[in-house]
Amino acid sequence: MRIVNGSSIDLGVCYYPEHWEKRLWEEDLDRMLDVGIQTVRIAEFAWNFIEPREGEFDYRFFDEFLDLAYRKGIKVIFCTPTATPPVWLTENYPETLNADIEGNLYYHGSRRHYNYSSSVYQEKSRIIVEKSASHYGQHPAIIGWQLDNEFNCENDRFYSVSDSAAFRRFLQEKYDDLEELNKAWGTVFWNQTYTSWEEIYVPRKTNTDSVNPHLALDYFRFISDSVNRYAKLQADIIKKYKKPEDFITTNGMFRNIDYQRMAKESLDFLMYDSYPNFGYELDNYHEADFMKDRWWSRNLTEVRAVSANFGIMEQQSGACGWNTRMETPSPRPGQILLWTMQSIAHGADYISYFRWRTCTFGTEMYWHGILDYSGRENQRLREVRLTGEKIRTMQELAGSKYVAKVGILKDYDNIWDSQQDRWHSRVDSVSQDALFVVLQQTHTPFDYIYLDNNRVTLEVLKQYEVLFYPHASILTEERMNMLEQYVSAGGKLVMGCRTGYKDLYGRCVTEYLPGLATKVTGTDIPEYSFAAPDETPINVEWDGSKFEAAVFNDLLEPIGGMAEVMGTYVSGRYAGAPAIIRNHFGRGEAFYFGGAFGEDAVRVFLENLDVAEPFGDIISLPKSCELAVRGKGDKQYMFVLNYLKNPVYITLKREMKNLWTGEMEQSRIELEKYGVRVYLI
Amino acid sequence: MRIVNGSSIDLGVCYYPEHWEKRLWEEDLDRMLDVGIQTVRIAEFAWNFIEPREGEFDYRFFDEFLDLAYRKGIKVIFCTPTATPPVWLTENYPETLNADIEGNLYYHGSRRHYNYSSSVYQEKSRIIVEKSASHYGQHPAIIGWQLDNEFNCENDRFYSVSDSAAFRRFLQEKYDDLEELNKAWGTVFWNQTYTSWEEIYVPRKTNTDSVNPHLALDYFRFISDSVNRYAKLQADIIKKYKKPEDFITTNGMFRNIDYQRMAKESLDFLMYDSYPNFGYELDNYHEADFMKDRWWSRNLTEVRAVSANFGIMEQQSGACGWNTRMETPSPRPGQILLWTMQSIAHGADYISYFRWRTCTFGTEMYWHGILDYSGRENQRLREVRLTGEKIRTMQELAGSKYVAKVGILKDYDNIWDSQQDRWHSRVDSVSQDALFVVLQQTHTPFDYIYLDNNRVTLEVLKQYEVLFYPHASILTEERMNMLEQYVSAGGKLVMGCRTGYKDLYGRCVTEYLPGLATKVTGTDIPEYSFAAPDETPINVEWDGSKFEAAVFNDLLEPIGGMAEVMGTYVSGRYAGAPAIIRNHFGRGEAFYFGGAFGEDAVRVFLENLDVAEPFGDIISLPKSCELAVRGKGDKQYMFVLNYLKNPVYITLKREMKNLWTGEMEQSRIELEKYGVRVYLI
Amino acid sequence: MRIVNGSSIDLGVCYYPEHWEKRLWEEDLDRMLDVGIQTVRIAEFAWNFIEPREGEFDYRFFDEFLDLAYRKGIKVIFCTPTATPPVWLTENYPETLNADIEGNLYYHGSRRHYNYSSSVYQEKSRIIVEKSASHYGQHPAIIGWQLDNEFNCENDRFYSVSDSAAFRRFLQEKYDDLEELNKAWGTVFWNQTYTSWEEIYVPRKTNTDSVNPHLALDYFRFISDSVNRYAKLQADIIKKYKKPEDFITTNGMFRNIDYQRMAKESLDFLMYDSYPNFGYELDNYHEADFMKDRWWSRNLTEVRAVSANFGIMEQQSGACGWNTRMETPSPRPGQILLWTMQSIAHGADYISYFRWRTCTFGTEMYWHGILDYSGRENQRLREVRLTGEKIRTMQELAGSKYVAKVGILKDYDNIWDSQQDRWHSRVDSVSQDALFVVLQQTHTPFDYIYLDNNRVTLEVLKQYEVLFYPHASILTEERMNMLEQYVSAGGKLVMGCRTGYKDLYGRCVTEYLPGLATKVTGTDIPEYSFAAPDETPINVEWDGSKFEAAVFNDLLEPIGGMAEVMGTYVSGRYAGAPAIIRNHFGRGEAFYFGGAFGEDAVRVFLENLDVAEPFGDIISLPKSCELAVRGKGDKQYMFVLNYLKNPVYITLKREMKNLWTGEMEQSRIELEKYGVRVYLI
Repeated sequence: MRIVNGSSIDLGVCYYPEHWEKRLWEEDLDRMLDVGIQTVRIAEFAWNFIEPREGEFDYRFFDEFLDLAYRKGIKVIFCTPTATPPVWLTENYPETLNADIEGNLYYHGSRRHYNYSSSVYQEKSRIIVEKSASHYGQHPAIIGWQLDNEFNCENDRFYSVSDSAAFRRFLQEKYDDLEELNKAWGTVFWNQTYTSWEEIYVPRKTNTDSVNPHLALDYFRFISDSVNRYAKLQADIIKKYKKPEDFITTNGMFRNIDYQRMAKESLDFLMYDSYPNFGYELDNYHEADFMKDRWWSRNLTEVRAVSANFGIMEQQSGACGWNTRMETPSPRPGQILLWTMQSIAHGADYISYFRWRTCTFGTEMYWHGILDYSGRENQRLREVRLTGEKIRTMQELAGSKYVAKVGILKDYDNIWDSQQDRWHSRVDSVSQDALFVVLQQTHTPFDYIYLDNNRVTLEVLKQYEVLFYPHASILTEERMNMLEQYVSAGGKLVMGCRTGYKDLYGRCVTEYLPGLATKVTGTDIPEYSFAAPDETPINVEWDGSKFEAAVFNDLLEPIGGMAEVMGTYVSGRYAGAPAIIRNHFGRGEAFYFGGAFGEDAVRVFLENLDVAEPFGDIISLPKSCELAVRGKGDKQYMFVLNYLKNPVYITLKREMKNLWTGEMEQSRIELEKYGVRVYLI
Repeated sequence: MRIVNGSSIDLGVCYYPEHWEKRLWEEDLDRMLDVGIQTVRIAEFAWNFIEPREGEFDYRFFDEFLDLAYRKGIKVIFCTPTATPPVWLTENYPETLNADIEGNLYYHGSRRHYNYSSSVYQEKSRIIVEKSASHYGQHPAIIGWQLDNEFNCENDRFYSVSDSAAFRRFLQEKYDDLEELNKAWGTVFWNQTYTSWEEIYVPRKTNTDSVNPHLALDYFRFISDSVNRYAKLQADIIKKYKKPEDFITTNGMFRNIDYQRMAKESLDFLMYDSYPNFGYELDNYHEADFMKDRWWSRNLTEVRAVSANFGIMEQQSGACGWNTRMETPSPRPGQILLWTMQSIAHGADYISYFRWRTCTFGTEMYWHGILDYSGRENQRLREVRLTGEKIRTMQELAGSKYVAKVGILKDYDNIWDSQQDRWHSRVDSVSQDALFVVLQQTHTPFDYIYLDNNRVTLEVLKQYEVLFYPHASILTEERMNMLEQYVSAGGKLVMGCRTGYKDLYGRCVTEYLPGLATKVTGTDIPEYSFAAPDETPINVEWDGSKFEAAVFNDLLEPIGGMAEVMGTYVSGRYAGAPAIIRNHFGRGEAFYFGGAFGEDAVRVFLENLDVAEPFGDIISLPKSCELAVRGKGDKQYMFVLNYLKNPVYITLKREMKNLWTGEMEQSRIELEKYGVRVYLI
Repeated sequence: MRIVNGSSIDLGVCYYPEHWEKRLWEEDLDRMLDVGIQTVRIAEFAWNFIEPREGEFDYRFFDEFLDLAYRKGIKVIFCTPTATPPVWLTENYPETLNADIEGNLYYHGSRRHYNYSSSVYQEKSRIIVEKSASHYGQHPAIIGWQLDNEFNCENDRFYSVSDSAAFRRFLQEKYDDLEELNKAWGTVFWNQTYTSWEEIYVPRKTNTDSVNPHLALDYFRFISDSVNRYAKLQADIIKKYKKPEDFITTNGMFRNIDYQRMAKESLDFLMYDSYPNFGYELDNYHEADFMKDRWWSRNLTEVRAVSANFGIMEQQSGACGWNTRMETPSPRPGQILLWTMQSIAHGADYISYFRWRTCTFGTEMYWHGILDYSGRENQRLREVRLTGEKIRTMQELAGSKYVAKVGILKDYDNIWDSQQDRWHSRVDSVSQDALFVVLQQTHTPFDYIYLDNNRVTLEVLKQYEVLFYPHASILTEERMNMLEQYVSAGGKLVMGCRTGYKDLYGRCVTEYLPGLATKVTGTDIPEYSFAAPDETPINVEWDGSKFEAAVFNDLLEPIGGMAEVMGTYVSGRYAGAPAIIRNHFGRGEAFYFGGAFGEDAVRVFLENLDVAEPFGDIISLPKSCELAVRGKGDKQYMFVLNYLKNPVYITLKREMKNLWTGEMEQSRIELEKYGVRVYLI
């Protein structure tokens, strides 16, 4: 790999040569080099530029740019242009368009209006990718390839006629026999029994904006399958032509995509597009939201779950904004550096800013780059230069990994099920938010770990002292077997209400609850209910700590000799009954909590399980600061990030080296607003 | 009739044999009998089960179930399955589908997506109903038939092509001559004059989401006519085959249906589906709403206006919830008993719980029955058993009627007019809410009485001391004649603002207001206005009581020698002018109030007309408790229902018999949370 | 001209002979004359009446009415009926219908559902207009013609197939070469490059409800062009037939119309439909909105910018209200007089009330006229009569013009750009509201002046001491040249943030900002940003006054020797840096303010520029009263209007004549609620 290869941390920028007069190119590339930028990404929306009319290809424009870049020593990531089909394509082949749930087509004028399922679109994509890959595969300026741009951004649901046809093929492969599908989906309910495959459609308009929930769950799986097949279609072509050391990636993280599969099938590593300034979006700003731009650390944690080391293809360098929505202020001095370091703290080894100059036209003309419309020198360019200087002092971090002892288990089955099931999403959304916020505020680094398709081994799980699997409504024997082994081997597993009541089709199980989790948790659930709105908050008590069993309450009973009641409901219909059970299982422990996890609940669990603040012996810092650690070999690097607009104080409890200055530091230190420190610990 | 026949109060349950393995049937039926359930309703969504492919019928599955039920001594209510057409039907005949106002079809995946007007759907319905009725009409397990399921639930508006065609036929029958229609609808306004019947459609998309208001009014009448014709189509077939003692019913109460007509043409009695737990729905819960589940007493009062004794086909026994909406907590201990007694207090003689076991799949997999997915014994089953025991002590109530001395007059003309007219609905909604709340809180039993089509005789009206007809914008001579006779004979009639300003087409009359009500009320209205929002509340004074003339104000003047000013505006534009007039008319009195009735207004009227708390001499109870009385012959039974989650105290002012215990009680009594008492008084 | 001709101020009324039996006509006309009404407008929705079937014309009905009117001495304004096509027309030619952005047609049932672009509709309009104009052009009762009714009311966007075709023609005329269009719209962005004109559409449904912003800007220009062409099509026909002294007008002011062009091409003067009672609309009432009905003075100021003297075709005389929306109370006693005088104060010389009797049917049956449904005498009729008496004392004002020394510059380029650009609208909406409110509250009369198409000369601008051009994002050299001349000649120009960053296509300029305004303002803008939501309000200080630089902040630097920093940011990212610059330019001054203008900002600018309260030496009055002055020759007439529901006190600092009473007044005077005074000063 030419970047994200463990040997360096590099800077890049997104560039649009087609937006500017050629006389500016040379000046631009020189200025990039001057501030430490050595890589550009180009051409992700340039289909029309390359194929102005169907079947007419012309690479002279990009030839000229690539040759100039090569002469200047600028490396290039070249994109397939499929994120936005040309007008001629969608006019000639409207079946390539995506549609809304009523079947109304999305026309040109925005982007990502195509569907993955149309055979015409697949064919046209095949041709343009083959043309570009064969033309530039061996070009010396090229170092890697981006597939499409932000799969599933703007729209992650597909309702075209082509999609219904593809959905049927997907289901035929999965179920083979229509009777199996009828059974899996419970179509006996409300007369939905299918008598031929042709009667099946992707979700359509219904009387109540509601379709069969098991169809809905398979539909999300279908979307992910479509995206992954489409990415692989492109990657397989590029692999035929690219230089061995060149990489294939794509950018962004969006819904309804199994990225672990994509990383395995099509990518060398994932790139992320990081826009933490959305935390200050004018229309969505809430004073009470303490986390703001720090929520992006959650996204970066998700990216790490795909590629331990990754790149940022688009790192925010200016204000957000289409002409119609998403207005934000410009980054304030210090924030470009802060957000860059936020990315690196989580494992990014390549940072590419979006974008060099701000485009003077089109829907994204307010999506500001480093430079404004005039291209004049400005504060943001100065900050990028400064950031480049800092990064040069940190090159030894390249290839090091984020360090965590707490894990949160996830799987796409439950994620997608909760998208169509409010009983599921109501508990999950509360717990996921609270877990992130409290782990962050207690400076407890954590990972997300995806369990789908046997991707994770027992050895991986054993690296974690504690695993939260908050509301795994859908459980499988395979996953439970591994978790039982994890606990047996000494691990601590924490599960919350609504665990284990569904099967892989999203149907409720008829076993006593929590179903497959009964054994490891030593718990039986004779009754359950949403917390009645006139009784909330419903509290539990555990060793003198009182906190909420949010949203939903399972009534618990310990079963088996090793289960003990740790906490009790103190209000609501189950007052006096068990609310938390700990089961000794092998050398470890499994906890079952009868509610969803609010912030207080997470805090108590972290304390009682003794995993909070693992670096508390060497540093104390306010909860408004993030702490992250990357490690490689026997070295560990500690990031401290201040997201506030005012200075804060941190205390180093022993001497450690400030990587940026090379000096040793200790004791009380003022961290300026938006300030960052990186220490070798 | 085999239930609701005046001889017993019975328990039943909704059951779905097709959702469970046959090996569970016997166990289920035995357990039902064990808790006192002797009747099951089946097959309301089983079209596909009976006719898996067009024209192929197979009753073996239900034969087997019915034979088992008969052997066990379980009685069966069998349903026509037309609420949800099979996939093959709507795929083959899309003209059977309902559509939204833009013409977009509602596809399969939810329920009730058909339209009543399609001749294909009518034909297919005819066939399946004839098949089932002829097959099971004489089966000894059968005791009655349910038509369809919840007519107009999910959707009470119809916009298909078939509906426009049927709407034209409806209008041709009504108006005969197109000129008559043009005149009735005032089509001269905005160039809407029709030159042929084919130019008329059900409401369609317009520039302002607004169509001719007189068309809109006739459209609601058309919907009701469609539903009623469709119900009669089915009932007429069943009548040919059923045993004489078997009944025909349908379930639920929804909008745009004249149920009195349906009861007369097609039903033996109406069944209601009572889900008071919606009062605790998570997304619609308002702490400030004092009435919560008690609002369902209003619905039950509406049901009584159709069938004085009725059944509950679906009585809530578990949490509500689709996978996409309507989440509620599970009923709390005591609430199943409470809500069952609420139904009985209003006249229910049959209670069928929804449903036995909770379905493990489909959109309603969270619509919980008595039992959860596993079928294990639980608190709800215990409470159903207990409720059955209580009901066994109350069998002498069977056939007794709810007792009331206050009536609220209604008619579908005004109800449907207010659906399309905000000047109408703004006053009506305020008054209807306040009347219900205050009558409930003052423990003043009341009835709704529907005046349409001469269904009510003067003798019926004379049973009431006071009749409220709060905002009868549309009046007819026929109705006013009867009301004049009622007042002449000594009755008290109370009318509010906006009375009498419209004709049956919903057009404003050019007579002086209140039009046809001028004579009985002795009132003239020279001016009127909405209450200006910068002047609200606008108050009136009546004998020292001050209360609001809400929403709208008529300026009043007494006319004729018998009219006297009882109340005066004390603020707003009409300050100092008359606001309440009482007219002595024959041996009775008519009141005209210039505003809408807020809660204070209702309270003062009830006090000044001396009809509040008719049972105040024998019981005092907090306003949080409902009081209801059923009477038969010379016996009266008093229900006291505590809807609160805490105990309250009531005082019996003389000795009376507690029906459940058989013991005499008196004085101060603690009524436990959600507690109920039934006394013979 | 027969009205609005500088010789009298006249009263009229809107009348619908087709809504009433002919026997009422004579009575109605006599009663009109009795209260001082001499003109009626008729027939604006009477297409069907004249052409009941395609090609069958019948004027006998209106002949009869016009002859009666002529005999009675009532003058008639006759309308073209094109605002609402007959049912037969849209049924036969659905291509005449407008559609929503998804292409769904708007059907009959409401009004204004046609599109201007359909050649069929244009042809049918041509025919009916020619028929009416030729039939009545010489009728002695006729004094003028109204084109259509309320162009663009209900809907100001057009998405029919006919509109896409017309849009292409409009663009071909404008750009000639498709390459020019591609360049102007920046279609290189997101692959929107057009390869044929047929690929272009009016905005359609897209993935993100967002189309190319430059297309969107041209689309608004296209709509205005369509309306203007359509109006001219009608006016040109009428001009062929009408009597020379008869006028052509249209009524209302709605969006996406260049009215100055319409006034020049098609009208003798504009009429406005004034409904200040919307300030009390039940659904939109906000206690905190101080201005309520006084906002209509802003609309009247816009009308004056088209026709210095104008008419009110529809002056509110009763409650607003369709059956589905827009409920208001009835005008309170005094408000009809107040709102009539509000219109006259701003330049109206003709007042026609909407409407005589209230229609008893149709969507607008609650849009009350002077009389209610019965036609009985009422308070509103008495007030109209009283108003007529007042107006008779004011005839010397006829033809006098509103007097102002402050101007606010506008142009449709910026207005329409801000409709599709939230960065533009966010600043503009705040400043426009604050300017109006504070100018009103400080009793500082002002004009709007439209700069489009060289319509305004330097001489016109020189009449103003101060010109605000708050956020002219789009600037042209032509406009800047004139403004530079204005300032050079001694004028004061005030510009706010975001000035000059766009060209006429709505693309951002690459020059240093504020672009073309750099020279006159002596200002450079190195950086800019929305005010960060966690830092608002961001304040500036100017000579000890502290106020907000709202919404957006430009960082300023003075350039050239004549620029000086007047104000400084005192918080936010630019704290300490210049926020207000004054540039001496020729004999005048230009100010650049780095933010949007909140109310405090406007107040400080007015004070520091010494233009507030120009009549402060002769009158003091509370800010709740409006002050307006009309002048003719050496005479000036001062209006004082009290919008409150309570009396206020004003003080005349010298003696002046009350026009209504003819008496001289001085000192402290009580102005009753909703009271008005007109003084000769």
